[in-house]
Amino acid sequence: MMVVNIKENERIDDLQLKGLKIIQNTNGFCFGIDAVLLANFCHIKKGSYVADLGTGTGIIPLIIWGKNDVKKIHGIEIQPEVAEMASRSVKMNNIEEYIEINNIDLKTAPEVLGIDKFDVVTSNPPYMQSGGGIINPEDKKAISRHEIMCNLEDIIVTSKKLLKDYGKFYMIHRPHRIVDIIYLLRKHKLEPKEIRFVHPKTNKKPNMVLIKSVKNAKPELKFLDPLYVYNEDGTYTEEIHKIYGEQWGYIDEK
Amino acid sequence: MMVVNIKENERIDDLQLKGLKIIQNTNGFCFGIDAVLLANFCHIKKGSYVADLGTGTGIIPLIIWGKNDVKKIHGIEIQPEVAEMASRSVKMNNIEEYIEINNIDLKTAPEVLGIDKFDVVTSNPPYMQSGGGIINPEDKKAISRHEIMCNLEDIIVTSKKLLKDYGKFYMIHRPHRIVDIIYLLRKHKLEPKEIRFVHPKTNKKPNMVLIKSVKNAKPELKFLDPLYVYNEDGTYTEEIHKIYGEQWGYIDEK
Repeated sequence: MMVVNIKENERIDDLQLKGLKIIQNTNGFCFGIDAVLLANFCHIKKGSYVADLGTGTGIIPLIIWGKNDVKKIHGIEIQPEVAEMASRSVKMNNIEEYIEINNIDLKTAPEVLGIDKFDVVTSNPPYMQSGGGIINPEDKKAISRHEIMCNLEDIIVTSKKLLKDYGKFYMIHRPHRIVDIIYLLRKHKLEPKEIRFVHPKTNKKPNMVLIKSVKNAKPELKFLDPLYVYNEDGTYTEEIHKIYGEQWGYIDEK
Repeated sequence: MMVVNIKENERIDDLQLKGLKIIQNTNGFCFGIDAVLLANFCHIKKGSYVADLGTGTGIIPLIIWGKNDVKKIHGIEIQPEVAEMASRSVKMNNIEEYIEINNIDLKTAPEVLGIDKFDVVTSNPPYMQSGGGIINPEDKKAISRHEIMCNLEDIIVTSKKLLKDYGKFYMIHRPHRIVDIIYLLRKHKLEPKEIRFVHPKTNKKPNMVLIKSVKNAKPELKFLDPLYVYNEDGTYTEEIHKIYGEQWGYIDEK
């Protein structure tokens, strides 16, 4: 029998994927559909080294492990309590050999984990630019949603350093940041190669964007068909059902 | 009775807009849906000075004149025969007071027409990057479709020079060039403020993108709802019907 150490306000959810389970904190931080879409957007070759920047609960490393044959995934998380919770999820699943949670500032990751080493970097970063005075920096949710501890350029520069030549960087973000994203990616030689917009439904503007960039690649962008989340009647589309079953009813919108 | 000088392979079409007519050359160059979408995407204040870079048949100045109360529109076209045909369309409509076709290289437009002068610049530029050896530079269609006489950066730099502070630049282009477009717009201080993707139909990836940029504006992008051209049954959507009636059945896809 597996012994799992669960704290107050935590719960265990079944990912319906190779028996994987994940610990979430109902008060603090649960993963959203964006993390699931990002993890499913990645194409990862057998034996790859992967790093996930701002891993939170560790959801992205867990899904990537469940769907691919990776060598190792590093989940980088600056918040000690969140990183500790993600580590317990990894232990609970007995996959410490494949997933390591690093409680470090992602800006130090190239120094700690290695430069030009990774095949793939993923990130579901904070979406909101800092600048307002209303954010409590002690708030775990705020840190995961606002650019308090790092900004978009930090994430892009870090990814560039971590990746091998022609290594892939996968990110999900908000469409209203697409100008910053594209400008900074090209500036730092992570050439955008694939863009896929996620729309809540047909006729609605996109509210998420998936981007694949390749380090030092030549410019050539492929636009993918849009991904719609809901049908007109409010049920999930077939594609969303394929990505995550109905049993994942607890997924929060970030 | 109006006397119209029509050449071989030319025809006159009724724009169904304030009695406007346009001359097109069935062998050489006809306007496409993209020009119509762009002209309808522009918000133009009363008394504005407008420049259209690479005006072709003059379709964009004609629609803008028909739908707005402008002071003057300059249609800039490098190809003498095409510019001459556009000039005849303007004369045929008796609106030389409002539309002037300038047969010049757009790169010389700021020098010829004035710097920091225009309220609005529009462009439906060549979509294809040059580089292949298969293009005949004598081919009028090729010049309008490929970056032979000017490239995207020439158009952006020229627009920046022509525009007043906070002047607006409206462009339609292909989604696969969005990285170049966004990177160059921001580089040259034409901040992208609105993006609207045009999809052939629901579930299909976009094949055109409308972008509004503002000179020296602060970064803040608004994403607009997608524009769908066709319904599932192959008929035009309601929005397309509103933009141009069924009578415009002769519009070519560029």
